[in-house]
Formats: sequence, C-alpha cells, structure tokens
Amino acid sequence: MSFETKVIAAPELQKFIAALFAHQGLSATDAAQIAEVMVWANLRGVDSHGVARVPKYLEWVVGEEGNAKPDYKITQPRKATLLIEADRAPGPLAFTLATDKGIELARETGVAWVGVRSTIHAAAVGYYAERAAKAGFIGIGLVAGIPNMGYTGVKGHAVATSPLTIGVPSAKYGTILLDMATATIALGKIAQYKIKGIPLPEGAALTKDGEPTTDAAKAAIPTPASGPKGSGMSLLFELLTSVLLENPIVKSFHAKAPGWRRHRQNGTIIVVDPSAFRDPAEFAADVDATVDAIKGLPRADENTPIYFPGEIEAGIAARQLKDGITLPLDTWDELVKVAESYGVQVPR
Amino acid sequence: MSFETKVIAAPELQKFIAALFAHQGLSATDAAQIAEVMVWANLRGVDSHGVARVPKYLEWVVGEEGNAKPDYKITQPRKATLLIEADRAPGPLAFTLATDKGIELARETGVAWVGVRSTIHAAAVGYYAERAAKAGFIGIGLVAGIPNMGYTGVKGHAVATSPLTIGVPSAKYGTILLDMATATIALGKIAQYKIKGIPLPEGAALTKDGEPTTDAAKAAIPTPASGPKGSGMSLLFELLTSVLLENPIVKSFHAKAPGWRRHRQNGTIIVVDPSAFRDPAEFAADVDATVDAIKGLPRADENTPIYFPGEIEAGIAARQLKDGITLPLDTWDELVKVAESYGVQVPR
Repeated sequence: MSFETKVIAAPELQKFIAALFAHQGLSATDAAQIAEVMVWANLRGVDSHGVARVPKYLEWVVGEEGNAKPDYKITQPRKATLLIEADRAPGPLAFTLATDKGIELARETGVAWVGVRSTIHAAAVGYYAERAAKAGFIGIGLVAGIPNMGYTGVKGHAVATSPLTIGVPSAKYGTILLDMATATIALGKIAQYKIKGIPLPEGAALTKDGEPTTDAAKAAIPTPASGPKGSGMSLLFELLTSVLLENPIVKSFHAKAPGWRRHRQNGTIIVVDPSAFRDPAEFAADVDATVDAIKGLPRADENTPIYFPGEIEAGIAARQLKDGITLPLDTWDELVKVAESYGVQVPR
Repeated sequence: MSFETKVIAAPELQKFIAALFAHQGLSATDAAQIAEVMVWANLRGVDSHGVARVPKYLEWVVGEEGNAKPDYKITQPRKATLLIEADRAPGPLAFTLATDKGIELARETGVAWVGVRSTIHAAAVGYYAERAAKAGFIGIGLVAGIPNMGYTGVKGHAVATSPLTIGVPSAKYGTILLDMATATIALGKIAQYKIKGIPLPEGAALTKDGEPTTDAAKAAIPTPASGPKGSGMSLLFELLTSVLLENPIVKSFHAKAPGWRRHRQNGTIIVVDPSAFRDPAEFAADVDATVDAIKGLPRADENTPIYFPGEIEAGIAARQLKDGITLPLDTWDELVKVAESYGVQVPR
C-alpha cells in the first residue's frame, strides 16, 4: 500500500505555516512559534497533531473559538502557582508561554504549577514537556477539552482523549518524553485504519451511537485506555484543569450550555527544577543509566529494540530534519489551497 | 465458589494491627497510623493492599529493609519543595507525613512537591490522596519500587507496577479518587484467578521466564497497562522519584548492585490548594456537577451504573464500616499466628 506524499524541508515548511498564521493577524513572533510547534509534531512523525490541523486553526483564530491577538492576563495567586488567562489563544502560544513562565518560577520555588485557562487546541503536548527538558527542567503537561472519548459504563462519548506528557532531561538520550492520550487509539489512527481498510483492534472504538465496533469506517469514538484507568485519568485531568480554573468543559458540554459545542481547551503545565534535589548533571547521568538498564534487558523479540518513551519519534525527527518531512499529499494540497485563497506564497 | 472468611469490626482490626506494630517497636502514634492506612484498604475491598501485607511489614521493620524508629530528615530545598529522607520508614508513615507537610506548605505556595526518599512499601497510595482531599486539597501521589512488571519490548520484568493516585475533594461525593497501578492487572488479582482456576485475560501477564501466558498458575509478571503507556508512565515515575531523589531502584536492580533485591520504594506527593485558583466551595460544587454530568449519561448496559473513580470502593467502605470487614480466613489466620508468636492478644 502506498500513499502520495510531499517531501519538504522542515525550515521551509515552518516558514510557510508561519506566513499563513501571519496572514490571519498573528504577530511575526507568534506565527513563528505556532509554526514551530506544529512542525515539531510532523518532524516526529506524529502527523495527526501537525500541520494537518493548520487549516482548522486558521479558521479558529479569526472565529469565535480563537483569538489571533490574545490579551493574556498572568497572575501569581500563590508563590508557586501561576494562572494564565489565555483569552482563547492558540494552544501552542499559551502553553509555550506557560512553560517558559513555569521554568522561570521553578528556578525560585523548585516546582511551578501553571494553570492555562481558555485556549484553543494545544497541539502535540510533548512539545512543552520537551521545551522544559531542553532547559534542564522536568516538564509535565495535562490538557482537557471537548468530550470525544468513551468512559467505562457510558454509551457514547463522555470525556476527552486528554493527554498526559512528562519530559525529563538526560545527558545522552535527549528528552525522555512520554506523550500519551488517555484513549486506546488516537482519532487520527482510526482514520489511517479506515484508509487502509483494515479492522480496528477489538475494544478500541465505538460507533457514533456508542456501539462497540472494529469497522474503522463506522468508528467515531475511541475508548479509554485500559478502561477505568483511561476514564479516570481523563476525568481527573478535567477536574485538575477546567474545573480548577473555573472553565468547566465536560459539565457545560453535556448540559448543552450556550456554546457547548464550541472548541476550547484548558491545561496545566507543571515544571520541576531537578537542581532543587540534586546536582543536575548527576541527575541526567542517572537518567541515562536507568534508560541503559532497560535497553540492556533481554528482548521479547530479538529483532525489536527496546525503546525509551519518545525514542522512536526522536529517531524519525533526526531523519526528517536531514531528509525533509514527508507529508501526506492530501495535507499538503489542503495547505496549498488555503495559501492560494490567502494570496500567501507557496514554497517552490 | 466460596471462600472461608472472618468478619471483624474495623476499629477492632485497627487496634489489633496497631498492637502488632507496637510490639515491633513502633511508637503508639506510629502503630495507630500504619494500622489506619492498612485497614483503609481492606475497608474499601482492596485486600491486596491491606492487612494481608502486615506480616511482611512486621518483618521488614525489624530487618534491614525497614526501620521501626526512623529518623526523618525534612528539608525545604526550594520554597515549594520538600525532601523527606525517610530512613527506611514504613511507607504509611513516611507518605502520611509527606501529605501533611505538603498540605501545610501548599497553603502558602499553592502547590507543594514533596519527595519521599527511601521507604518500605507505600501500601494503598489512594489513602494519601484522599487524606489531602479530606483536608480540602488536591492530592497526587507517585511511587516507584523494585521491578516486578513488564515493559514493551522486554522479555521479563523491567520496571515496577508503580501507582498513580489523584484525589480531588467534592461537595457531595466525598473524594473523587483515582488509584491505579501502571500494570494491566494487579499481582493480587492474578492470585485470585489462580485460586478460582480461571484463565487470565489475553496479554495481561508473563511467566517468570517472560513468556506470555493466560495460565494464572504460571503467571508471574503483569504486563504494563496499554503497553507503551503503562511502560512509559512507570519508567517516568522512577525518574521523577527514585532518580530525582538520588536513590535509583531500576538501575541498581538490573545492575545487581549490592542489596539489589532488597525491598525499597521512593515516591512523590504533590499537593495543590484549590483556593489558590477559585473559591473552594464553588470548586467542590463544580466537581459534583462534572461527576453528575458523567453519571447522567446513557449507560452502555442499562443494569450497570456509571461510577466516578473510587466510587465502588467508597461504597464497599461504607458497608464494611457498618457491618464489619470481611477478610479471607487465610489472611486472618496468618495474623493470628504472628500475634500468638508475639504474645499479642487476638481480638475475641
């Protein structure tokens, strides 16, 4: 099976995406930042969270969902907490800001809990955890959004596929980066099964009517990972973000409150300064040693390496940084169409 | 299928357990506290983490693993972080201390990150999250220990079944309490399948040689929940606890470093003060409303209620608090045997 693809150098793609956002009224800095976050996902092969989302974002930032020129209000309710009222900012901007402010505060307090209230889509949350790790910090991120996932015992969608990310700096392995949804399977992966015409794993998805299905064409709702575990994590993430920040999503969605279908998210970035607890170089060396211990264990399958979280994606990124990013042609064509409608120049 | 059981009132069981620990040199206060944590698990029907563990703890506290009279060293490396050097304290004592100190600090800083270094078994970590929630705080706990679980790609055990707990206070539902291991199935549950002679779910466990099995009698190693997700969470929890606190377990275990098999744990308690972000009564009311929204959704099976995390266990606890705790007779007999060898009086 093969798909038509477009190969493009990462910096070129990034510049192109930035130009699209600049056209919609974002400042040059903001446009460059959002492009960096989107392309980061494609570089790592996570196309579901990359530039394929850009056309939607471009609509959002000039619609009622989003805001091209957000007026952030940053307060410090207590010594180690920050609240960013994000004013419907694109997630990549609000969460990057949260990460940077969190790093600054964690230097002083050891840990910072940064609430991010009212954004649009956070994109690939691993970016923020890695951003913290690259600065020598531990980054943790939680995001909650519109219900699109099942919940144990519920027929239909109940909570969101809310992601959890944890990034830890190492000395030789880059960032040890967990970046997971609380769902069994990503919506983007269901689409891939559909294109390939192969059945979904048993128990991974429901139809739009909430009936279990392995038919990717009928699948509309991913199930929670490990049943009550994924269900519980997602619900708790909604409580730790949306509800704590006085912008509940699950509640207002199911009550069909005004604007209930409107796309929106909330999140939390937690930053920890390892140097509060031990010498950061020794910490990084022990992270390496721990990863080495796992990678050195007997393999379940001799031909399949043992990976640390994020290792496969980091390998793809290294390759694509050199050889260019391979995008599905559909994704590229859609970007070109938007660019032409804006009068933005398409690369090459 | 029926098992012989012993029914005993919770306060009576608690007093009995406390007497056993007092015999081993714990202060009356410490003995009462450890008994409270152990019995909390049985009350909730989580027998795998309750008094069945007591005989082992009683050995540990006078052996090289543990310490009946730990000399805690509590430092505050940065404003919002605490480090508790637990001196091989029983987990229930060290983590209760961590929770209480975390609450105290979070009042001032909004969030507190409390590292707990060098304990023995943490028991049911949900206790600490609920303890924070009962005081009106959000409690989060992570614990890492000796490798006893698989890891994607590894043949055999690699990381620990490291738990995650998150407790959030509500107004009418008590604590919304996630308390999960990163494993597909608990070791205690495998034992139950074995007793009942029924096959394990496909993919839930490995033999001691690392081969997949559904035979509970041969199963020795639970697999990580959702493969790479459970694997990743467990490894990251080791980095956030043991490695950050300069007491790596995974690394020294696989290197067969001196004492590599010695039972030990490290953990982190994170406490957040909701009042940093919004009125706590309104927060609790919105937690209720969010839970109500989920519970009010259409059921997958008309006869199966939709539960919030921790609800089933809270229901069991309410019943057993009234009617007494039902213990497997084996568990009870073992406690009696130990009591008799100590000369500690057995209830009734």
